Amino acid sequence: MTSSYRPLMGTPIDDLDTPCLVVDMDNLDHNMSVMADYYENRNTKLRGHGKNHKTPAIALRQINRGGTVEGVCSAKVSEAEVMVHGGINNVMITSEIVAQLKIDRLCNLAKQAEIIVACDNLDNARNISRSAVSHGVSIGIVVELETGLERCGVQDIESGVELVKAISGLPAIQFKGIMSHQMMSEVSSNKEDRILEGKRLIQPMIDLRKAIESEGVEVEIVSTGETWSYDVAGDIEGVTEIQGGTYLLMETAYDYMSDFQFAASVLTTVISTPRIGMAVGDAGTRCVGAIKGVPLVYQRPDITVSGMDADHCIFDTSNVPLSVGDRLRLIPGQQDAMISRWDTIVGIRDQKVEIVWDILARGTHS
Amino acid sequence: MTSSYRPLMGTPIDDLDTPCLVVDMDNLDHNMSVMADYYENRNTKLRGHGKNHKTPAIALRQINRGGTVEGVCSAKVSEAEVMVHGGINNVMITSEIVAQLKIDRLCNLAKQAEIIVACDNLDNARNISRSAVSHGVSIGIVVELETGLERCGVQDIESGVELVKAISGLPAIQFKGIMSHQMMSEVSSNKEDRILEGKRLIQPMIDLRKAIESEGVEVEIVSTGETWSYDVAGDIEGVTEIQGGTYLLMETAYDYMSDFQFAASVLTTVISTPRIGMAVGDAGTRCVGAIKGVPLVYQRPDITVSGMDADHCIFDTSNVPLSVGDRLRLIPGQQDAMISRWDTIVGIRDQKVEIVWDILARGTHS
Repeated sequence: MTSSYRPLMGTPIDDLDTPCLVVDMDNLDHNMSVMADYYENRNTKLRGHGKNHKTPAIALRQINRGGTVEGVCSAKVSEAEVMVHGGINNVMITSEIVAQLKIDRLCNLAKQAEIIVACDNLDNARNISRSAVSHGVSIGIVVELETGLERCGVQDIESGVELVKAISGLPAIQFKGIMSHQMMSEVSSNKEDRILEGKRLIQPMIDLRKAIESEGVEVEIVSTGETWSYDVAGDIEGVTEIQGGTYLLMETAYDYMSDFQFAASVLTTVISTPRIGMAVGDAGTRCVGAIKGVPLVYQRPDITVSGMDADHCIFDTSNVPLSVGDRLRLIPGQQDAMISRWDTIVGIRDQKVEIVWDILARGTHS
Repeated sequence: MTSSYRPLMGTPIDDLDTPCLVVDMDNLDHNMSVMADYYENRNTKLRGHGKNHKTPAIALRQINRGGTVEGVCSAKVSEAEVMVHGGINNVMITSEIVAQLKIDRLCNLAKQAEIIVACDNLDNARNISRSAVSHGVSIGIVVELETGLERCGVQDIESGVELVKAISGLPAIQFKGIMSHQMMSEVSSNKEDRILEGKRLIQPMIDLRKAIESEGVEVEIVSTGETWSYDVAGDIEGVTEIQGGTYLLMETAYDYMSDFQFAASVLTTVISTPRIGMAVGDAGTRCVGAIKGVPLVYQRPDITVSGMDADHCIFDTSNVPLSVGDRLRLIPGQQDAMISRWDTIVGIRDQKVEIVWDILARGTHS
């Protein structure tokens, strides 16, 4: 049995069962267009991040819209499997893949599509090489450089060059290039600040590229930049692609990126108004999340969320009363942790259901 | 296609793909036994909360173990549907159900099993009555009293009595009794503190029961108490059942409830050790959650989680080094928001897979 909710096409938004994950199709298309228009005539291209929507159909929609490398990133091997199954021919896995079980799955996947994987460790690269030889495939590797996220990656240019030189000689491995992620140290909506910060954080990637090339090794891919720096990285010479995911559905933590519009939200119904100044909604952390704070109420600046538990949200209605049965839309603080809690995305245009997408890579944690 | 991970029975825990939601079967059975043994010979019984495991097979396992009302709670109508489909004959829905679409589903469900629903509003009760008449069914109602959780429910005894009197006359409605939830105002592991706090918060329920009975209305159900007060509410005369869910799989936020053992955890693999004092694991908030803080590393007090993002956790390994490929288990701060991010629970005994449960009510947000 399945418990997925699947409204019929054309259902008015007011008739949807709640909570329901809905996407405003005009806003989604707008967000896709911003990226496509920006990258269309640049050497740098977008590589959309599949982890943010977990839906091959949405990845293909962006690829068809233009300005991309005609491939995606995936956070996980299982997610990459779903993307390839869904018709994507080129996947970069942005995490280190170390378990033998998973390396074997990578090799299987490389029989279906071009597979590139992040690496920061020579033993790991050797294991991938050995497995790729025995499977008769070739795996692309990008060396990850740590550029301020304080997560995986080699820690400096020298270590990067050393790893690249060692990797380049391995059989059944194609050294493709380098990769990094960045987070702003202090979030700023000011574009000049973003440019300065983006350039500062990405500069080590340009230095690493040069250092590798000075050893006579070709660097095809320099994959770096995020939603917040898409228009910074896209203008830095030497960057070949940027990874962006949040821009598509958006979240409150990125609300300073005013180029993009909030597309995904959770529709909720008020189920109780126990006392003045307060109302209770039927959507909680289980389906919206509260990792980056409580959600925003879409297009209702007069109402705030004051608290959440697993299955309920509490509205502060001091400024405006709500009634039992009223419906509101919640914009999450972080949407990529929200999407995989759902089975379907209900796309709305002109107040009616235009499309229902299966979130095919939902639950691909491994 | 499905992306669910389903290891074969007998697979050694060391061979499981990660991240993987595993349950220690000895600890699960221990937690079930604590409740069953406590309630076996009392008038008060346990009504297990399905929202914490979303798995009818686990609910039935606890019912078979004993000491229960032979029914469960559900947070949502869609969750109740899965529980009834899975063989549970008696479900109390612990939220107000107000949308007509959902009331109709309640009525359909009442043709399959005994259905009881929380209510704090007369208009809502009238709508349920009208729908139940037209569907030819009877729906049980428990009036919710607000006892410190600051969520739904009538706010005082007088309002409660008034609502009960109005409800009792409605056709196709069976007034069953009253319900409440509580949270400790200051968390204490000291049993005497728990008893004092539990009694203080539950006393209004006893007062409401008496006030209703003094109006000549019978109160069959007084459903109140939680995992933290299971042994307090169970000794209060007039309480007929307690709702407990967290006790089964457990979480760090309830670690002061030392009667219970941590049963559920997410198995993770170290994928990178980029520098001294730090390691990166392959499980993040997307599959573990961090709503009540970062997870605990099970049986490894020498290692702490210092940070999490959607798909990674960062270990502080200042005290002990970790290597790429090492495997650890993460105990979440709040497990009920974790469970529904997974499709299956992998039960482990003697280091091998004993059972794989489908989380059939996963994703039942509505």
